[in-house]
Amino acid sequence: MRTFSCFGLAVLAALALACGQVHQVQPPSATTDPLPSWNEWASKKAILDFVDRVTDPQSPDFVPEPERIAVFDNDGTLWAEQPIYFQLLFAIDRVKAMAPDHPEWATTQPFKAVLDGDMETLAAAGEHGILELVMATHAGMTTAEFEAVVTGWLATARHPTTGKPFTEMVYQPMLELLDHLRANGFKTFIVSGGGIEFMRPWTEAVYGIPPEQVVGSSIETAYEVRDGKPVLVRLPNLDFIDDKAGKPVGINSHIGRRPIAAFGNSDGDFQMLEWTTAGDGARLGVLIHHTDAEREWAYDRDSHVGRLDRGLDEAADRGWVVVDMKTDWNTVYPTE
Amino acid sequence: MRTFSCFGLAVLAALALACGQVHQVQPPSATTDPLPSWNEWASKKAILDFVDRVTDPQSPDFVPEPERIAVFDNDGTLWAEQPIYFQLLFAIDRVKAMAPDHPEWATTQPFKAVLDGDMETLAAAGEHGILELVMATHAGMTTAEFEAVVTGWLATARHPTTGKPFTEMVYQPMLELLDHLRANGFKTFIVSGGGIEFMRPWTEAVYGIPPEQVVGSSIETAYEVRDGKPVLVRLPNLDFIDDKAGKPVGINSHIGRRPIAAFGNSDGDFQMLEWTTAGDGARLGVLIHHTDAEREWAYDRDSHVGRLDRGLDEAADRGWVVVDMKTDWNTVYPTE
Repeated sequence: MRTFSCFGLAVLAALALACGQVHQVQPPSATTDPLPSWNEWASKKAILDFVDRVTDPQSPDFVPEPERIAVFDNDGTLWAEQPIYFQLLFAIDRVKAMAPDHPEWATTQPFKAVLDGDMETLAAAGEHGILELVMATHAGMTTAEFEAVVTGWLATARHPTTGKPFTEMVYQPMLELLDHLRANGFKTFIVSGGGIEFMRPWTEAVYGIPPEQVVGSSIETAYEVRDGKPVLVRLPNLDFIDDKAGKPVGINSHIGRRPIAAFGNSDGDFQMLEWTTAGDGARLGVLIHHTDAEREWAYDRDSHVGRLDRGLDEAADRGWVVVDMKTDWNTVYPTE
Repeated sequence: MRTFSCFGLAVLAALALACGQVHQVQPPSATTDPLPSWNEWASKKAILDFVDRVTDPQSPDFVPEPERIAVFDNDGTLWAEQPIYFQLLFAIDRVKAMAPDHPEWATTQPFKAVLDGDMETLAAAGEHGILELVMATHAGMTTAEFEAVVTGWLATARHPTTGKPFTEMVYQPMLELLDHLRANGFKTFIVSGGGIEFMRPWTEAVYGIPPEQVVGSSIETAYEVRDGKPVLVRLPNLDFIDDKAGKPVGINSHIGRRPIAAFGNSDGDFQMLEWTTAGDGARLGVLIHHTDAEREWAYDRDSHVGRLDRGLDEAADRGWVVVDMKTDWNTVYPTE
């Protein structure tokens, strides 16, 4: 064996890699479908073609690896969002859990509505009411305490109609897409209107997206030393809303360069797709259209959650891919 | 060759890797010093020991790769900061360049002081004066325009006393340390009081740190569509000051988990080191002490730039490593 040159060994190394003995992750080959939960329609082809073009060094659309940034909305794009955003269900559960320490909530809106299960009054409280719920349940504790509360809730809470844990209501086709992009040198980010610290405790385990690649809405935090131990305290003040025109701002703040691919499902993602696809070179904008009332939900222009109206009107002109959940996906949730 | 098993090929692959034919970056071996610009003193040993302990799967201090986060201050830690922060020299040059369009500056402070070269009056204008300079020179343009201005300045500007380009006034020992950490699975971040968009255009080329791993101070930006083309406009409003107690806040906002190693040089880094080293398990806090008046500068407790006072008092009790630039480093700047 000592007679082998380094070059010869390198050739053998390549063979060994092909055997899968050295590396766990193999690049997708022609015989392996990286997106088995996607039917063989135009959407799948457009996505795979884009990945091929930006990763092929011979292609005029080639993009160097550090610039392969892909951003994903979360609610309605990576996991479900009906009948209301899951974070709002979390806030409602927190109000109920915290109510014994807040007797005043029995007579104060919107807390009374939550405790009475009066969804009509809660809905009427609008954005201001939701903000009050979020501040009361998400602030006033350290970041470590909040993380423990989120983790505990996700371990036990179940969706009101499917009965599933919320982290199992993620979309299998999107998990495959995240894997495929990362296997092709993409860095995947979440850019969501949801709370950044509500997502970070679980996105790495569920999506393979680490905390430093999660962008979201936030409240202010303050650094304090309590009994000699430093903590970060969550304050009841809004810091940033990562929605609509806020999404490109959040992308610029956290990522610092323009993505080349963006995935959303509502008009809250419009500016993120607009910003992404306005860049030079090959760009991919994708909207997930919720069309499957049987396996998931069907909603768009008139929905109070995840409203998709302008995006549907302008997608074709802008060259954005609209994924029809009912026909494009042969699987919705991961197999249990 | 077909008689080789995959296992046998994998063994050969390992040999090939040792030949350096397949991978460019090799793990440091006993015969290769990963930090040649560091003298063989206690500081170097403490840093290398820490890296060994957190990366050795057999060690009780082992840290999984995704949690190997290291944060670095920039001014005075990765590059020099005397006689004043380089970003302030940039602002001064910008005032001079923009003056023809601002005749009112000839009679308005602190602009008049800049144009007259009157550093005493400028210093007397204090933080408020500096903020005025920064807002006048860093805002009122798009993010793309600002990036071009920064890049153009760095390409031509020279340091007032060394005559070097500013990006050559980075510390060779720290470049080696960044490489060594990354070769050992660390993700390296900048966490600086400097402007986030002043740093991002060059940190990848100079330090190997991509834009999404740069945390810094910021002004507000707004998303706009101008003539059908989306832009991010820099507004003359402070958004975030990433200094002192702001550093743990910035780390939490951008990284979302506590680093295991922190490197700074001034009391502006105190809370970053405090937050980092208060975590469970093995932690590393390092302060660069500027002690070399001959090759760089010597300053600490009384300096108006990079003041280091409390850090020097408390480092020993807190187990932080204090690097003595004069004795610990055999090289300061990269060889030209």
